[in-house]
Amino acid sequence: KPGTNISLSPHRRFNPLKNEWVLVSPQRNLRPWQGKSETPNTVEKPPHDTSCYLCAGNKRIGGAANPEYRGTYVFPNDFPALLPDGIGPASTDNPLFVSTPVRGTAKVICFSERHDLTMARLPVAGIRDVVETWIEQTALLAKDYRWVAIFENKGEAMGCSNPHPHGQIWASDFLPNEITTEDKTQAAYLQHHSRVLLLDYVLEEMERQDRVVVENQSWIAVVPYWAVWPFETLLVPKRHVPRMLDLTVPEKADLADILKRLTTRYDNLFKTDFPYSMGWHSAPFTDRSNEHWQLHAHFYPPLLRSASVKKFMVGYEMLSEPQRDMTAESAAKVLRGLPETHFRPTNE
Amino acid sequence: KPGTNISLSPHRRFNPLKNEWVLVSPQRNLRPWQGKSETPNTVEKPPHDTSCYLCAGNKRIGGAANPEYRGTYVFPNDFPALLPDGIGPASTDNPLFVSTPVRGTAKVICFSERHDLTMARLPVAGIRDVVETWIEQTALLAKDYRWVAIFENKGEAMGCSNPHPHGQIWASDFLPNEITTEDKTQAAYLQHHSRVLLLDYVLEEMERQDRVVVENQSWIAVVPYWAVWPFETLLVPKRHVPRMLDLTVPEKADLADILKRLTTRYDNLFKTDFPYSMGWHSAPFTDRSNEHWQLHAHFYPPLLRSASVKKFMVGYEMLSEPQRDMTAESAAKVLRGLPETHFRPTNE
Ligand SMILES: O=P(O)(O)O[C@H]1O[C@H](CO)[C@@H](O)[C@H](O)[C@H]1O
Ligand SMILES: O=P(O)(O)O[C@H]1O[C@H](CO)[C@@H](O)[C@H](O)[C@H]1O
Repeated sequence: KPGTNISLSPHRRFNPLKNEWVLVSPQRNLRPWQGKSETPNTVEKPPHDTSCYLCAGNKRIGGAANPEYRGTYVFPNDFPALLPDGIGPASTDNPLFVSTPVRGTAKVICFSERHDLTMARLPVAGIRDVVETWIEQTALLAKDYRWVAIFENKGEAMGCSNPHPHGQIWASDFLPNEITTEDKTQAAYLQHHSRVLLLDYVLEEMERQDRVVVENQSWIAVVPYWAVWPFETLLVPKRHVPRMLDLTVPEKADLADILKRLTTRYDNLFKTDFPYSMGWHSAPFTDRSNEHWQLHAHFYPPLLRSASVKKFMVGYEMLSEPQRDMTAESAAKVLRGLPETHFRPTNE
Repeated sequence: KPGTNISLSPHRRFNPLKNEWVLVSPQRNLRPWQGKSETPNTVEKPPHDTSCYLCAGNKRIGGAANPEYRGTYVFPNDFPALLPDGIGPASTDNPLFVSTPVRGTAKVICFSERHDLTMARLPVAGIRDVVETWIEQTALLAKDYRWVAIFENKGEAMGCSNPHPHGQIWASDFLPNEITTEDKTQAAYLQHHSRVLLLDYVLEEMERQDRVVVENQSWIAVVPYWAVWPFETLLVPKRHVPRMLDLTVPEKADLADILKRLTTRYDNLFKTDFPYSMGWHSAPFTDRSNEHWQLHAHFYPPLLRSASVKKFMVGYEMLSEPQRDMTAESAAKVLRGLPETHFRPTNE
């Protein structure tokens, strides 16, 4: 067990999913801040915004009009990074100039017709609707593609150009870097320990408790031992579930419940619409055995100490390795202490 | 050789240094922008700012006063992420909760007493002074540490809290993730090809020319084939040089020359103090053979299409893999076409 010292002095922690280290410098917590501020977003938006290209009935950038949808609404990205037709041959004659054509598709998923709500402020039934749509889209795209990326960029700090609650789905015929890595690390763990990495991890965290943020019957959210972002969390089912498609009915309901509670805590932390990028990792759609895979979501939120002060992953982080100040345990303690009633009443 | 199609349709390229892929979506170049803007920085600053904690003679945050320095000035970081005394034992009993104490130190290096200049606007002799200081500090810290990270975060977009031209030096008793990876990939290349990876790469780029931004007798700067950031560059000596300590006198002079020319082009691109994080990678200070290592600098600039529009590395990038729109060849062409006279006259 780590001694008490580790929470006070510089150390590295190992991320067994990514096979990488993070530098933790808890003693640095007190340094003053002179840097850039983001503008905190506290003004209430209208439930429907005529200038929003995601609102029901409005025209999109590409020219098409949205239907008068209620609940979730999925449409093709007007400027997709991936296209269904791969063109041209792979280039592999020189090992330093290797490229390969790819096939894929990109969609946008509106979480609700309500322009003014975020996941934290949607009713649980609305989040349940999002969960069902994620599952539906995954099933659909898995027919054509090996990997389906489900993610959400939330807030201007995360490059999200429209506050209307929405996420993205990018499917591809290749396994992206992060999936390839998690596939390898989880497979190696299963081989060495005959157990599932993230299930072992979750059981141990339920025992230790000091990094747990919130849990219910089927799910647990922790600030992982190896967290990089100040208030990063990992959301995992308590049972062995390789893919979203494998979730039972109660597990889906519990997922909506814990998403509501986790994102509400996030918003309450700095009394702001808490920005983050979040997304799902799960077994890819290949013929290989996927028993080593455990479904999970990563939340990567940039804020550090207020609605306007974020952690910058820059020189040392980009060129050497990720660095954080506060320990994962301190971050979890703060999040655990927050109420699960949103600081702003919701006008449903 | 890649066909003409590759510059128009989605593909992946392989980064042999990081052993990772990047998704390239050239067809996405035309999408409109609705997102966040940074404030472009065009106001001239005073040569000396009494409120700047890096200016000569002024008080620092920690309370100490800077001397009346001219040229470069190195001092210990007032809030170091690393400390010279490692405390506590490594924790390795559970493979999912591995941590290890670390030793290290962090310093700040002011590039000049001039508050208003950046590397692009310093005289070449001033940049030469910076190069000498990098080398001096590396030699000094290599006595105690296995790795010396030399880097610069420039601009508010890169979390740099003070415009006074300065960089950082973090030394550690461990090899950070990025160094471990580049060490492995370069060693494997030497073993398979009996040649140095980055030297082979540079020779080939000198031949192909389409990714070259600027070169002189001893150095070349290219937008690497596998670039992730829109205007990312890689700066490499044309001769086999494992470490900065191995540079000859003319190579140091040529380094100052090419740094001036490269950073001037960057500033001229969007007529702004071009933000970036840059840093040096070189053979670590270990007993092993380092013949596979080639010294190089990475420049990671965030701007995409104006002084205020940056590329966000968010959901897909963090959770799947890096994605870029414009090809490396297009970016290099743009940078190559720019003048080497700074858009703002320097008051020396
Ligand atoms: O030490 P500074 O300049 O205050 O801090 C900046 O650079 C460091 C090294 O890349 C980062 O860890 C910080 O997040 C960033 O704000
Ligand atoms: O598609 P969007 O929301 O315009 O774009 C945003 O998310 C994408 C996927 O993470 C990124 O590639 C873009 O850099 C970012 O601005």
